[in-house]
Amino acid sequence: MSKLVIVGTVAFDAIETPFGKTDKILGGAATFIGLAASQFNLDAAIVSVVGSDFPKEYLNLLSSRNIDISGIEIVKNGKTFFWSGRYHNDMNSRDTLVTELNVLADFNPVVPKDYRDAEVVMLGNLHPMVQLSVLDQMETKPKLVVLDTMNFWMDNALDDLHKVIKKIDVITINDEEARQLTGEYSLVVAARKIQEMGPKYVVIKKGEHGALLFHDDNVFYAPALPLEEVFDPTGAGDTFAGGFAGYIARTEDTSFENMKNAVIYGSTLASFCVEKFGTQRMISLKADEVHKRLQQFKNLTQFEIVLD
Amino acid sequence: MSKLVIVGTVAFDAIETPFGKTDKILGGAATFIGLAASQFNLDAAIVSVVGSDFPKEYLNLLSSRNIDISGIEIVKNGKTFFWSGRYHNDMNSRDTLVTELNVLADFNPVVPKDYRDAEVVMLGNLHPMVQLSVLDQMETKPKLVVLDTMNFWMDNALDDLHKVIKKIDVITINDEEARQLTGEYSLVVAARKIQEMGPKYVVIKKGEHGALLFHDDNVFYAPALPLEEVFDPTGAGDTFAGGFAGYIARTEDTSFENMKNAVIYGSTLASFCVEKFGTQRMISLKADEVHKRLQQFKNLTQFEIVLD
Repeated sequence: MSKLVIVGTVAFDAIETPFGKTDKILGGAATFIGLAASQFNLDAAIVSVVGSDFPKEYLNLLSSRNIDISGIEIVKNGKTFFWSGRYHNDMNSRDTLVTELNVLADFNPVVPKDYRDAEVVMLGNLHPMVQLSVLDQMETKPKLVVLDTMNFWMDNALDDLHKVIKKIDVITINDEEARQLTGEYSLVVAARKIQEMGPKYVVIKKGEHGALLFHDDNVFYAPALPLEEVFDPTGAGDTFAGGFAGYIARTEDTSFENMKNAVIYGSTLASFCVEKFGTQRMISLKADEVHKRLQQFKNLTQFEIVLD
Repeated sequence: MSKLVIVGTVAFDAIETPFGKTDKILGGAATFIGLAASQFNLDAAIVSVVGSDFPKEYLNLLSSRNIDISGIEIVKNGKTFFWSGRYHNDMNSRDTLVTELNVLADFNPVVPKDYRDAEVVMLGNLHPMVQLSVLDQMETKPKLVVLDTMNFWMDNALDDLHKVIKKIDVITINDEEARQLTGEYSLVVAARKIQEMGPKYVVIKKGEHGALLFHDDNVFYAPALPLEEVFDPTGAGDTFAGGFAGYIARTEDTSFENMKNAVIYGSTLASFCVEKFGTQRMISLKADEVHKRLQQFKNLTQFEIVLD
């Protein structure tokens, strides 16, 4: 089993969907990634920052899942990063209502000493310079570096983003972001262009339409589980990434064939995440529920054609 | 091997895409369905109507593929149905430029005597009353009736459409049409509501995002093959339906497990259809190319997770 370092936000979210709204609840990319990865009973550490307003119970929750929180800086008299958003009726788009960076504005990540030899590094969505700083602190070359990012950094820090993209193995972005990053409409062409930028593996997330994994001329497609309703999509992409990285760390196998499984695990965990507000479903999630849904994924996609 | 009856348009199309435009070329739902089904070397018959302006070589082309054309009425001094459309840059939407019904306006389908005991009936997109008339002419109850339709009939002949939907086994429609037919956004809920209308099997086509097959609580998902570019989407849905119905007729197995294979065959054939204008690619398509692409579909979707 490999060690996993996760960098990303630990935050408060306030969410509105057609089904209801929340007050400030636990959120943040690293939180969702950590909760997903913890399904694999890994040695994982989160590198992040919160303010002194951040409830101790949330930190305890992460610790209780074998997540090392010594890399989560607590800024005295600081306020925790806060995001608020409202989803549209189709759940495929949202408006950001509030973004308060707070302690995130001056965040200097510090990777715990014990984790500077981690084999798997998951760079959650954050400023690319923060992601780069985490990579620079690694004392041994990780077996696999996975990066998640979003259009905000393409709009506001593209040069920095390219610096970190050069140094990673796997990138996970959504379809529109892949198109924006490359100027190509075809996802096949976009994935090829992104591979030329650095990462040998490209995962394109298409929300309810599933995810594509590209490597050289190979493609793998994992559908999203067709759901009666999506209650709250917040964190689904992070959960996918956490499931992906966690599965690789657990299996210590970075082959393309095994990455297919990692994509399936990521999709499986994401399918739970959207069932309730925020982290609620991921916190209550049990291993047997995951296994049952993996079987559903098999039924959903596996077929037996006899080629005559 | 079962006999297959196909009803649908045999037509002229004129197509504009970002890659170019065509004059009047061979088109029509029944043409695409027939060409796809002919990959299985079936006994198939097309029931349709054309004008005396319809080239003999097109009819010969269908005959040469073992398609019985005795049910294609040729109206003397009549003009063949003509459709012209222009695709937008994203290829996911199009404007209809011209629709000339011509001989289609007074079409009375006549199923050839030899095919009134066909085991599989494919009702291609047409006025629901024409589809119903074909069903009424069957002298033995078919093992499987597949219906393809579109939003136009939901807007203009909904009562008639419901009459035929009641009598079929499988419906193939696209995602927006499934939503329109049921008033439900969730495709899972929409598929359930459609099953309550009659067909026990519901195939929802999502274009570049693949297709879903629903039956009771079972779901199967076939992705579309990720393509560098889609040259011309015309006929892809019909080709999918023809591949589906043709595979069922060939294998004589209407189980859900075998329908999964039928969906994969439909997707495979549709992935060829879009590579060239109109029927061009389907006409040149060879069996070994199909087999090779089926293998690509397997690589695209099959995985081996060991559940621990």
